[in-house]
Amino acid sequence: MKEIRGVLLDIDGVLYVGRKAVEGGRETVAWLRDNGIPFRCVSNTTSRSRQSIAEKLQGYGYDIDAGLVFNPPLAAIHHIAGKKTFLLTRGNVRDDFEEAGIPLVEDGADVVVVGDAGDGFSYAAMNRAFRMVLDGAGIVALEKDRYWMGDDGLMLSAGPFVTALEYATGKTATVVGKPSTAFFSLALADMGVPPEQALMVGDDIRTDIGGAQAAGMKTALVMTGKFRKDTLDTSPYSPDHLITSVADLPAALRATYI
Amino acid sequence: MKEIRGVLLDIDGVLYVGRKAVEGGRETVAWLRDNGIPFRCVSNTTSRSRQSIAEKLQGYGYDIDAGLVFNPPLAAIHHIAGKKTFLLTRGNVRDDFEEAGIPLVEDGADVVVVGDAGDGFSYAAMNRAFRMVLDGAGIVALEKDRYWMGDDGLMLSAGPFVTALEYATGKTATVVGKPSTAFFSLALADMGVPPEQALMVGDDIRTDIGGAQAAGMKTALVMTGKFRKDTLDTSPYSPDHLITSVADLPAALRATYI
Repeated sequence: MKEIRGVLLDIDGVLYVGRKAVEGGRETVAWLRDNGIPFRCVSNTTSRSRQSIAEKLQGYGYDIDAGLVFNPPLAAIHHIAGKKTFLLTRGNVRDDFEEAGIPLVEDGADVVVVGDAGDGFSYAAMNRAFRMVLDGAGIVALEKDRYWMGDDGLMLSAGPFVTALEYATGKTATVVGKPSTAFFSLALADMGVPPEQALMVGDDIRTDIGGAQAAGMKTALVMTGKFRKDTLDTSPYSPDHLITSVADLPAALRATYI
Repeated sequence: MKEIRGVLLDIDGVLYVGRKAVEGGRETVAWLRDNGIPFRCVSNTTSRSRQSIAEKLQGYGYDIDAGLVFNPPLAAIHHIAGKKTFLLTRGNVRDDFEEAGIPLVEDGADVVVVGDAGDGFSYAAMNRAFRMVLDGAGIVALEKDRYWMGDDGLMLSAGPFVTALEYATGKTATVVGKPSTAFFSLALADMGVPPEQALMVGDDIRTDIGGAQAAGMKTALVMTGKFRKDTLDTSPYSPDHLITSVADLPAALRATYI
């Protein structure tokens, strides 16, 4: 009997790095399919719709469609449950909310959703979000990262602005992306696989490995993407498997679980 | 022997409320002068220079010049001690820094000063400040208030954006305005009066009364401006005197200390 009945794959840093597919990644995805092991791709990107993420993966040669992609907007949509929503986000992530039929408003929202809005984090937009939260809206954070590496240097992510709204209103945001258990659970439920029979493959020791372990899953840390040995050595989290890249996933699964 | 040898007067809510001088305020200032009791005006406003605050007071009929006005920029200038500074502020508060000869830069600052920048809190400006702090600059907060009441509703103040920079960088800002002891000390030193012989008159139970008591001063809370009885009742701070308005200051001083 197989111990692992489903796999979650992080995208950026696992399936591609920079603007290039990770070598052997396509073969691993094909191997999962050939062996009947269900998988989903879980990304913490908050500025792209599921369709747009899938198209990016297809551009790298991956045979993966939007239905297999799980992003924080999807978790937010699940959490929001149809309530009136003000989006403080950018890019085509708006498509995900529109396609799910979420009523998007500029005033009187029940929920304020904050992603990495970039230049959208104007004083006017922040003040609008602030007033709605003070009037009773909840805060949903698609992620609460501090910053990311842009083309010309570090860029503030959603976290600082979520924190600003929390400080101003005294309310606490619900974080729906990784490392929240709810996010992993959503992807696992879609496969019908319980966490103890699922493996999370990621490059981030905290959000991927720590988050998945907290959700009860097995974990494999890849040494591509944002992996750094010293970050692993000083982390409170310890992955079940350390593999060179996603190319080694079939070997690790065969050796241990199958 | 007089027990009180100097007075600090909060401005907004004490000397004027809305767009009107508080009745009896001018007479109280004249009485302090006639009785040889030194005083300074201490404001937490971060968008106006000392000169601009003095001119506003003069417009309300107060005989008060800029030298008597202490604002957070002045405390910041004292704290900065000539280092290269990036200002995330608005209005003519910039004049105070320029007149003090502080080198103001857009890159490579040693100190990032954050006031209520209003629309100046763009993503680009926040990111610029963030990168400088990550490169080693300190964060100085002119204030850390959550919000204030604008003409058409509540407006985010500096506090949320200071908190955002703290979250992004892991550093803690130095707050130089009220209720910091350093701020009160600066105004007291200018009069040459020790805190135990000074009285703070304000309308804010936390920043004026709590702050001044922590600095070792005597306190009088006025029932004008932002004073609310329930705020006083539920506050951990208790003023030495509760007076109807600044008009009653001479009577309180005469009855108790002179």
